[in-house]
Amino acid sequence: MPRDGGPARLRLQQAALELYEQHGFDQVTIAEIAAGAGVTERTFYRHFADKREVLFDGERVLREALVAGIAAAPEDLEPLPTLLWSFRSVVPFLVGNRPLSEPNRRVILATPALRERAQAKTASLIEALSTALRERGVCESSASLAAQLAMAASAQATSIWFVHPDRDLDELVLAAFADLRTLTAPLAADASSR
Amino acid sequence: MPRDGGPARLRLQQAALELYEQHGFDQVTIAEIAAGAGVTERTFYRHFADKREVLFDGERVLREALVAGIAAAPEDLEPLPTLLWSFRSVVPFLVGNRPLSEPNRRVILATPALRERAQAKTASLIEALSTALRERGVCESSASLAAQLAMAASAQATSIWFVHPDRDLDELVLAAFADLRTLTAPLAADASSR
Repeated sequence: MPRDGGPARLRLQQAALELYEQHGFDQVTIAEIAAGAGVTERTFYRHFADKREVLFDGERVLREALVAGIAAAPEDLEPLPTLLWSFRSVVPFLVGNRPLSEPNRRVILATPALRERAQAKTASLIEALSTALRERGVCESSASLAAQLAMAASAQATSIWFVHPDRDLDELVLAAFADLRTLTAPLAADASSR
Repeated sequence: MPRDGGPARLRLQQAALELYEQHGFDQVTIAEIAAGAGVTERTFYRHFADKREVLFDGERVLREALVAGIAAAPEDLEPLPTLLWSFRSVVPFLVGNRPLSEPNRRVILATPALRERAQAKTASLIEALSTALRERGVCESSASLAAQLAMAASAQATSIWFVHPDRDLDELVLAAFADLRTLTAPLAADASSR
């Protein structure tokens, strides 16, 4: 999974995160981020539309990787196992990206407007996963519901992992998907039987 | 389930929805809404903090009813059946509220900033459901996951219902919860077995 954009992009992300954490997101200017990364403001704008988008770059890479994973999953897998397969395939990226995603997450959680933005990004990620499932022939309602379930499970896995960095993320993802089945088991499988 | 606030509140909601649909949410002023409802601006502010909150009043009533439903559900129910029980208990309110919620939904879908706000409200509703489950002794991770699953299922049921008003909402809710089980059935119930 390539991290596009080269060293200037990465330096900009690191500088931005450091400044956001130190001074609060709202207080930091793009001029300061550029100076912190040792590049011009123009270089900043070559990589990011605004200072908020710096924080959602990892989400974009993740979305592309998950969509590719859904397309690449074995053909005979059902919708949720397809999503599990795809989420497991991005674990190495998530592990490698943790030095950025951890401060990133702290900055978003500390800033209400960014939290709303993150929720909107999650909704758009669910939509992308759902579209990718439909391209495998899954019907719209199952695709949408499966995408939401998978997102909920993986968010649970990563939440635990952010608090307990020593835990194995792949195992946490497997356990969270297993929880989906455990939780739904007491429901009647067929609505007409109730 | 009482709709608090009396006739002025309802008239304000109806006037606001009519104006939002006619002119677009951004173009409408609170003075126009008050005039449309035949009340003063001061009366508007006695009922709503701003013109956006008019659109999320039903969501607030729904949240309170769902939380009450979780507390009232039979003690021996597991987390997801508890949520199903609660969602089924609010179906009469949703049916009765449809004349307001239908234009409400159209206005929100047509306005990007309102869509983001609606997503934030959904996240806070999930949090409230999760808290209500924890108060029944459900552990935090199961409560959170179950609340997200139930929200996804009920959103699917109401989406179908908004397109097909002749369908029975209670049956759609049951069917969507049954879909949760059908979708998760192909997952291994125990992570260690994979």
